[in-house]
Amino acid sequence: MRIVLIGSGNLATNLGVALKNAGHQIVQVYSRTMEHAHELATRLGAVPTHQIEQVSDNADVYILSLKDSVLQNILPTLCKGKSDKIFLHTAGSLPMDVFAGFAVHYGVFYPMQTFSKERLVDFKAIPCFIEACDAPTRDLLQALSRSITTKVYPLSSADRQYLHLAAVFSCNFVNHCYAISSELLARHHIPFSVMLPLIDETARKVHSLLPSDAQTGPAVRYDENVIERQKALLSDEPSWANIYKQMTASIHQTATTKREHD
Amino acid sequence: MRIVLIGSGNLATNLGVALKNAGHQIVQVYSRTMEHAHELATRLGAVPTHQIEQVSDNADVYILSLKDSVLQNILPTLCKGKSDKIFLHTAGSLPMDVFAGFAVHYGVFYPMQTFSKERLVDFKAIPCFIEACDAPTRDLLQALSRSITTKVYPLSSADRQYLHLAAVFSCNFVNHCYAISSELLARHHIPFSVMLPLIDETARKVHSLLPSDAQTGPAVRYDENVIERQKALLSDEPSWANIYKQMTASIHQTATTKREHD
Repeated sequence: MRIVLIGSGNLATNLGVALKNAGHQIVQVYSRTMEHAHELATRLGAVPTHQIEQVSDNADVYILSLKDSVLQNILPTLCKGKSDKIFLHTAGSLPMDVFAGFAVHYGVFYPMQTFSKERLVDFKAIPCFIEACDAPTRDLLQALSRSITTKVYPLSSADRQYLHLAAVFSCNFVNHCYAISSELLARHHIPFSVMLPLIDETARKVHSLLPSDAQTGPAVRYDENVIERQKALLSDEPSWANIYKQMTASIHQTATTKREHD
Repeated sequence: MRIVLIGSGNLATNLGVALKNAGHQIVQVYSRTMEHAHELATRLGAVPTHQIEQVSDNADVYILSLKDSVLQNILPTLCKGKSDKIFLHTAGSLPMDVFAGFAVHYGVFYPMQTFSKERLVDFKAIPCFIEACDAPTRDLLQALSRSITTKVYPLSSADRQYLHLAAVFSCNFVNHCYAISSELLARHHIPFSVMLPLIDETARKVHSLLPSDAQTGPAVRYDENVIERQKALLSDEPSWANIYKQMTASIHQTATTKREHD
């Protein structure tokens, strides 16, 4: 397929490389900044542009990976005169209907993973959630998805927004917990590497136990002595202290509800 | 060595099995409830007791793995008449000096891992942090630690409390994020297994990137449209909504500070 990438961020970079490796032709890369467009286009053997009016109409599919607010602004210009083309976005939380009134054939390809430019991931193992507005889009979307991953699931916009929210908790908030942890260690000259066996086991555990059954620590056993001492250690960091309090209260609440049901 | 375990929870269970496998003799297991003492004692070929007065004085080491508040209450009775014995606790946040005035030879053996009874972990890879009040305790603690793990680090009580706090963020709070995620998915009939590749990659990423460099998602790129929509999805769950708000604000703050420094 001949593909135009709209966006040049972490997701566009990882997706572009996977599509090129699967034999598709990336004909053009658009980014608001020419430097970013050029960087990714060079990597993919494509033509860069930073002007949305200059986006080629000589492609089969247009894949949009942009911040939600930006995406909605460019649709009128991007879709104009391309009523026979297929438009896809890759955003977890944006409904498919964002294209309605601008494009005729459109859908969603949401690869649920955390992407960084510095770290290419193996797309084969990434669950991808798809949605299409019509049969031609569905056929193309199925073929495109299966060319890069073995895990393709149809999912509605209504359910996808909850999936994306769940991913924010399982990935973005988890990573921020790691970040707070690493900063606490750095301040006491303890290398973050000592934390990795615990991080790995915590992730591995939920492959075989329900997360609510895997919960350990002072909050779930309601060890008030420890909780009060740890709050005191965070008195200079009000935002971390707030996270500590909210997390502890929520863990305790979940455990109490669970015990009542058991 | 002849060892008495005081406590029969997740940590005591995993540690007891590792010590037994390393060739030590677990002579007795104490728990407040006879059923729990009996269960672990049977597994370790030891004698169970639920009366602290009945704890044998015929051992080399007493290892205490109890909720902090309980631990402090039993020390007067437990340590009485055992001034030649060595006492260790396994708590991350409790200072070594909790033993002062009760025992003569004492220290800390803190294995930093998340333990569940249902899931025995390989102790060899667990970083263990040790502290001793005198030379005889240090020698025994070194020998005991090295018999079950290759990762032994001396650490003061003052630093250990920050290590434990960091572990609470990297493990307990992370697991609660998984728990909220799994509950959100369950309510929309999406299996939690689709989240595992994302969970695994999030953990793997911080082996090679600093957590603050690995951060992705709506909060770090400050995608207000997504953030507002996701807050609205949590309107029926005030404690999850609070966590969402605190996490998002803290991620944004960290990213802003980082950009100013870069």
